[in-house]
Amino acid sequence: MSRKIAGPEIERMIQFLAKLPGLGPRSARRAALHLIKQKDQLFVPLTAALEEALHKVVICTNCGNVDTVDPCTVCTDLRRDRTVICVVEEVGDLWALERASAISGQYHVVGGTLSALDGIGPDDLNIASLVERAAGDEVAEVLLALNATVDGQTTAHYITDRLAGCSVRVSRLAHGVPVGGELDYLDDGTLAAAVKARRPF
Amino acid sequence: MSRKIAGPEIERMIQFLAKLPGLGPRSARRAALHLIKQKDQLFVPLTAALEEALHKVVICTNCGNVDTVDPCTVCTDLRRDRTVICVVEEVGDLWALERASAISGQYHVVGGTLSALDGIGPDDLNIASLVERAAGDEVAEVLLALNATVDGQTTAHYITDRLAGCSVRVSRLAHGVPVGGELDYLDDGTLAAAVKARRPF
Repeated sequence: MSRKIAGPEIERMIQFLAKLPGLGPRSARRAALHLIKQKDQLFVPLTAALEEALHKVVICTNCGNVDTVDPCTVCTDLRRDRTVICVVEEVGDLWALERASAISGQYHVVGGTLSALDGIGPDDLNIASLVERAAGDEVAEVLLALNATVDGQTTAHYITDRLAGCSVRVSRLAHGVPVGGELDYLDDGTLAAAVKARRPF
Repeated sequence: MSRKIAGPEIERMIQFLAKLPGLGPRSARRAALHLIKQKDQLFVPLTAALEEALHKVVICTNCGNVDTVDPCTVCTDLRRDRTVICVVEEVGDLWALERASAISGQYHVVGGTLSALDGIGPDDLNIASLVERAAGDEVAEVLLALNATVDGQTTAHYITDRLAGCSVRVSRLAHGVPVGGELDYLDDGTLAAAVKARRPF
C-alpha cells in the first residue's frame, strides 16, 4: 500500500476522480491539485455544477435521452419531424448525431445491444417501448443508427423483425468511406462496402 | 455555435469538466454521460467527495503543502527528520517524493519558479518563509528538489544565494540515468551529466 499523502477527504476525491473515463490515478491527482489551485475559478463552480446537474438530470421516459426535463427537449420540439424515429444504442450516440445536426426527427435510445455473452436479452433494452412508438399513426420510418459492430447489427436485425407488424419503413445508416478519410488507412470491410454501394458521380 | 444538446445544467457540468487537465470537450461529454449512467456508484459519491474536500482543503502555512489540517500531517509528524528541508516547486512534486518514500525530512513548497518572461519574481514565491525556516536551530540541510529545467535551476541558484546567511548545507538532487532507463533513449545532457558524476562500482 502506498503512503497516504493528503487528508482522507482529498484521497477520496482523487479516488473518485480516477474513476472518470479518460482519467487514471496519476491524472486524477493532477486534476485534484489543479482544482485546489484554481479554487475559485474551477473547484467551486465545478462542484456547484455537478451538484446542480445531479439533482436535475432525468431520463426521458419517451425516448431514453438524458435531459433536465421529461419529456426531453428533443421530444417536445415541435419543429422536429415526427415521422422519423432514429434508434441509437446510447445517449452519447444521440449527442453525436445532434452535434452533426444529422437528424431532424425523433430518437429512441435502446440502451445497449443484445449480447449473449454478457447475458443481455431483448427485455434488458428499451425495445418494447420502441415498437409501441413505431406503431403510432405519425411514424413512417425507423432509422437504425446502431454501431456497425457484430452486436449492433444483431440488434438491428432483431429490431427489424420486431417492427415487422408496424407499417413503418426500416432503414439503416450507409456504410462507406468516412468523409475526409484516406483509402489507404481504411479496413477491407469498409472498402468492400463502399465499392458495393457505389453511387453515380 | 453548436446546437445545445442537453439542459443548461448538464452543459455547464460538461463545460467545467472539460477544464480538468487530461479532459477535453469530447472526453468531458463522455465523463458526464458516465456519471449520469453510474449515478449511485459514481455521480453521487464524487459530488459528495468534491463538496467535502472543497470545504476541508487548506494550504499548510508552514510548508505550503495541501492537506485538510494546518499545519499539515507532514509538518506535525514527529517521526520525520526535522534537520532536512526538501524544497519543491509544486505540491505535485511533494506528492511524487512522498509516493516514492524518498524523503524522510520536511518540505517547503515555493509555488513555482522565477521567470522573467512570466514576470514571476522572488516576492511571488514562498522564498522568504523558507529562509526564515532555514535560519531555525534544528535545520542542518536544505535539499533543492526543483525541476531540472532552466527556470528550476535559476530558482535553485537564487535560493542558494539567499540561504548564504544561514548555517545550512545546501544540496540538490543527483542528475543521471533514470533507474530502468535505456541509454539509447536518453538526451545528450543527461548522458553527459551521468558520465561526469560516475561512481565506483
